Amino acid sequence: MNRLRVALIQVNSVVGDLDGNVARVRSALGEVADCDLAVFPEMVLTGYPLEDLVLKPRFVADSRAAMETLAAESGGCALVLGFADPGPDGSVHNAVAVCRDGAVAGVYHKRQLPNYSVFDEARHFRAGTEPQELYRIGGVRVGVAVCEDLWVADGPVDRLLEGGAELLVTINGSPYRQGKLAEREATVVATATSSGRPLVYVNLVGGQDELVFDGGSMVADPSGTIVARAPRFDEAIVVVDIDVPVVSAPGAGLPVVEVSGTVDRADHAVPPPIPPLEPMAELYGALVTATRDYVVKSGFTDICIGLSGGVDSALVATIAADALGPEHVHAVLMPSRYSSDHSIADAESLIAEQGLDGRTIPIEDAHAALRGMLDASVGDLGDGLVDENLQARIRGVLLMALSNAHGWLVLTTGNKSESAVGYSTLYGDTVGAYASIKDVYKTTVFDLCRWRNVQEVLSGGGPVIPDTILAKPPSAELRPDQRDDQSLPPYDVLDPLLEAYIEGDRTRAELVASGFDAELVDRVVRLVDGAEYKRRQTPHGARVTRKGFGRDRRLPVVNRYRG
Amino acid sequence: MNRLRVALIQVNSVVGDLDGNVARVRSALGEVADCDLAVFPEMVLTGYPLEDLVLKPRFVADSRAAMETLAAESGGCALVLGFADPGPDGSVHNAVAVCRDGAVAGVYHKRQLPNYSVFDEARHFRAGTEPQELYRIGGVRVGVAVCEDLWVADGPVDRLLEGGAELLVTINGSPYRQGKLAEREATVVATATSSGRPLVYVNLVGGQDELVFDGGSMVADPSGTIVARAPRFDEAIVVVDIDVPVVSAPGAGLPVVEVSGTVDRADHAVPPPIPPLEPMAELYGALVTATRDYVVKSGFTDICIGLSGGVDSALVATIAADALGPEHVHAVLMPSRYSSDHSIADAESLIAEQGLDGRTIPIEDAHAALRGMLDASVGDLGDGLVDENLQARIRGVLLMALSNAHGWLVLTTGNKSESAVGYSTLYGDTVGAYASIKDVYKTTVFDLCRWRNVQEVLSGGGPVIPDTILAKPPSAELRPDQRDDQSLPPYDVLDPLLEAYIEGDRTRAELVASGFDAELVDRVVRLVDGAEYKRRQTPHGARVTRKGFGRDRRLPVVNRYRG
Repeated sequence: MNRLRVALIQVNSVVGDLDGNVARVRSALGEVADCDLAVFPEMVLTGYPLEDLVLKPRFVADSRAAMETLAAESGGCALVLGFADPGPDGSVHNAVAVCRDGAVAGVYHKRQLPNYSVFDEARHFRAGTEPQELYRIGGVRVGVAVCEDLWVADGPVDRLLEGGAELLVTINGSPYRQGKLAEREATVVATATSSGRPLVYVNLVGGQDELVFDGGSMVADPSGTIVARAPRFDEAIVVVDIDVPVVSAPGAGLPVVEVSGTVDRADHAVPPPIPPLEPMAELYGALVTATRDYVVKSGFTDICIGLSGGVDSALVATIAADALGPEHVHAVLMPSRYSSDHSIADAESLIAEQGLDGRTIPIEDAHAALRGMLDASVGDLGDGLVDENLQARIRGVLLMALSNAHGWLVLTTGNKSESAVGYSTLYGDTVGAYASIKDVYKTTVFDLCRWRNVQEVLSGGGPVIPDTILAKPPSAELRPDQRDDQSLPPYDVLDPLLEAYIEGDRTRAELVASGFDAELVDRVVRLVDGAEYKRRQTPHGARVTRKGFGRDRRLPVVNRYRG
Repeated sequence: MNRLRVALIQVNSVVGDLDGNVARVRSALGEVADCDLAVFPEMVLTGYPLEDLVLKPRFVADSRAAMETLAAESGGCALVLGFADPGPDGSVHNAVAVCRDGAVAGVYHKRQLPNYSVFDEARHFRAGTEPQELYRIGGVRVGVAVCEDLWVADGPVDRLLEGGAELLVTINGSPYRQGKLAEREATVVATATSSGRPLVYVNLVGGQDELVFDGGSMVADPSGTIVARAPRFDEAIVVVDIDVPVVSAPGAGLPVVEVSGTVDRADHAVPPPIPPLEPMAELYGALVTATRDYVVKSGFTDICIGLSGGVDSALVATIAADALGPEHVHAVLMPSRYSSDHSIADAESLIAEQGLDGRTIPIEDAHAALRGMLDASVGDLGDGLVDENLQARIRGVLLMALSNAHGWLVLTTGNKSESAVGYSTLYGDTVGAYASIKDVYKTTVFDLCRWRNVQEVLSGGGPVIPDTILAKPPSAELRPDQRDDQSLPPYDVLDPLLEAYIEGDRTRAELVASGFDAELVDRVVRLVDGAEYKRRQTPHGARVTRKGFGRDRRLPVVNRYRG
């Protein structure tokens, strides 16, 4: 048995920020003393995913140079660093370097490139084909792999194990979605137990456009016990002593690069256990992280948001206040002739409860002016769709004017149910740079609000989202006495159908066969397909389900399939 | 020498429209008499590209069933039909079936899957690995391949040739971009001459979201002569008798499926030669086709457009009038307090010249109302950015109201230079369902206008775009005496720099090294990178360059690289 001291360092890298990411690595290393090995996440030096930034050869060369800079600075602690590595013929590898004592001991190129769901690695990287090798660190033969390499049967990780690896180290850029952590742990534990080798899993943390990386780095021992776990959604350094059983080297083992010898230590690093998060806490954490990082990494400090008095804008304002501080949240009430007194009162009490910066701009003057201007071309608008959209778009214009004038980034408040069926006004309530809850169904919006209120009550406060907001039936308030359920089925009927159609990729016939009402299916499928053009023009938002609208679901706009 | 009568049938398929595409194939076959072989484009039965529609298993099964329906109907003429074929484990193949006499003689699965530029075939398809085979049709051993299969060295086409193919048939979904046809012809001719075998190349035609397929199907003989060429941008059937030299079957040749015997014919089908298009005619044809098909395939007949009196909106209105008929183009003048008399007069004369449906809605009332409403939150707006954006967004609101009221699809008028540097108002002049000239640089916009005027003059008319529109300096007219060159370098300086940065993926340092002014490079690179969030929320438009904004260039929005 060898004991190896390993630092799991989950970093919130920024895409393209090579200098900043090098500084993040240096700063973390400054906090780590006397380790054998410091492991950083996949692509820590470049950020992830890079998308077509990889197609700039100069950027990839700069990424390699950043790795070499850190390698030159390395000392007795071996570093495992992810970066983009230039290959032959203009190709690029998703790479990891093992560095120590001022030099690069070896570089491994990811062999399994995911190209499904939100991943496009076959577009951007060439799979590694060079012979694999092991690194002897602190007397232990360490095998290194990258993310997807761990998830395929009979793949690169199996080669490392057969070739004599005593400890597996995988670096990852694995984005959050509901239920993902359990899948990760099952794979990590299965590999550790079936191989009898400990496994170190280090993940990125932080938001990048529509993805949010949740950290949760971990170490599994050969018995399948998770002996260390880093927090979710926060940067963290976890130092843990891992007892590594000695494995006799196989006859035809992989070549072993000598990196460092054993170190005797008197103390024994045992990290404090991090309790797992319950599902709502995890989801809320993902939304706060994604929102904060989009705003901050874009160079903003403040956001503005239209508050309708409804549940969606109340939740997004609350997320933003938790992400940025309530004084950085500028809430705007924009009542029209159809807004109810209770909605205005509800929005005002939300502002007061959370200490947001609030203001009210009634839209009647612009509404009346635009109705008058359209009279000759359209005739009397009455209170139909044209007039409803006018109101939503005037609000969009006002939010953007405040954004332009004050440098506040606009958050849009639509949820996944609305976005799915197109129950929104393009260039109206869809206006904004980031859509915090675009991948959250309406029923889950209510669950999150209730959960957040309970947390506040448990910590001695009152509900941050007024109960009256949660109690009333959802309404867009764009015509007299409007309610969502006049246009849509109740959300507890709609949401399961949407989930089966969107996440499940079921067709009309399959949905009807599985028990959904045929007429309802026809109507909802038509609405979802018909709203694709709207979704193409809406902002990024946090992806938290198995299939979000965005890089996860790329349907043609012109598409006549209605099967 | 065998003589084979082949029909090249370039079809404008609609994505997802299985029934409609089957009907298109049937209708074309009704016009073809006494052929040995009828060749349709790649994915003719499903449309192309399908994107994530491929992930619906039921759709793929329906696609296979559509192919089998046509196979069952087939008679003495062998059919070559592209479709999506279900594979094992939920995989899908980009497939082609050879059918005759009521049966499927064979199915080939595309082996080379493009996954760069606008293509994502590694996401959607599994590459074929089944043994290749040849089809004896009219006494000729025919080898069949799909699009990318032809473009790789030592690939599936080489296997067909080595294996005894006497005639090569490739079916294609090759989108237009400037210069693409010459590349295609060079590859087709090189393959025919080096192998000594004739080659049949059949391409899709028509617009699909941001892609436009240009047809131009062709036959090359072994000497490298293009002996038949179909028109560009239009559906067409070209029937040609191909003289196929007999090749002695190799010892280890590919298996040959017997499909049909020789037919003696007295007459000799020689298609009329189609003259090649000059570059501006080709580009203009692509823009008209893309615009027409987006509108029509989306189920619309009419469009509306804001006419500023400037060159961009003049060109888009002209494209739309050519695509849909001038009576289906509803032009809207929306002068603000800063609009010049000559701009209004220029727009009015464009409307009169082309017979568009025109109307004028001055925006002053809404402009004044919104300025007043913002006074408390923003103070006096003066004539800066906030006020400029207000005007553009009021126009967006009006266009969308007309769209909602009359069922007119909105065309947006921005060009590639503007879109690149973000010289546009999000939710203002970017409003619309389709952006006809989004991939056309401003200098090319002028070229296209002049070319279109010359065509009209050549055919005996006057200029359709008034010369005064082409003569004046570009201006957004959103503040007093505004001109584009106050904010941007002259377009003949800007456009080459943009092309090097965008199409060329050069970095700042490389651009400076190649001779661009360093300060200008810094400014333009900053503008282009900073406008990514805007481009993510703008509509689809026709891609006509080597790298359009859209599926061709997928950069992160949060991205700090400034190298």
